[in-house]
Amino acid sequence: MSAPVTQVSPSIQEAIRETNRQFEDLFNRGEHGGAARAVYTTDARVLPPGAPVIQGRDNIEKFWPAAAAQLDIRKLSLRTVDLQPLGDGAVEVGAATLTTGNGQSVEVKYVVVWRQEDGQWRWQTDIWNTNA
Amino acid sequence: MSAPVTQVSPSIQEAIRETNRQFEDLFNRGEHGGAARAVYTTDARVLPPGAPVIQGRDNIEKFWPAAAAQLDIRKLSLRTVDLQPLGDGAVEVGAATLTTGNGQSVEVKYVVVWRQEDGQWRWQTDIWNTNA
Repeated sequence: MSAPVTQVSPSIQEAIRETNRQFEDLFNRGEHGGAARAVYTTDARVLPPGAPVIQGRDNIEKFWPAAAAQLDIRKLSLRTVDLQPLGDGAVEVGAATLTTGNGQSVEVKYVVVWRQEDGQWRWQTDIWNTNA
Repeated sequence: MSAPVTQVSPSIQEAIRETNRQFEDLFNRGEHGGAARAVYTTDARVLPPGAPVIQGRDNIEKFWPAAAAQLDIRKLSLRTVDLQPLGDGAVEVGAATLTTGNGQSVEVKYVVVWRQEDGQWRWQTDIWNTNA
């Protein structure tokens, strides 16, 4: 009765890559709120280390500019390590590199639960923590 | 085209509660490896703060006794904050309280992706971080 883990279809993989690139591009141009607006579902929640859950895209749009400023994040890059379909959604395990103003890099690992909204693949649940 | 977020059925909620109680009970009796064996899927992965991904239940069985000893965790309790169905799985957002040997408590928040395996609801992806 084990649910076989199948592959995410190439077209969905592509759509998911696209969303992640969109977040990186906007974020790395300093449009932190716009990056959030582009990729999260309306009902999304973010679980950042050292802070309570942030519920809903409107709040997440305020969270990212504040977090980027507080941590002085200048560049963010995402790398999908594993992607599994789950119903009409998907579960991604990934690695992110955050580069700060002093040129230092921090590696974090993350889990994103993906769902479709308005014909787009978006982040519905987003949680991460450090590797070391 | 937004996927409506429906409710997890009462019987699945009950099964999920049962699995969480099983983890707590075994863990709190000091059976940390047994707790892991009872609740994770064979292919599960754990993403703990401050360490790389732990892949597969055999490795997770070794992780929990080591983590419990290192952090001196004497008691662990889980509380489901939100549970959403996703295909034949489910996504849980929860809060955990870890009590250490010196009587201090640490609150963490977590995301667990649930899947069915061998007729049981089990943890397939498990990640957490601190609230403060």
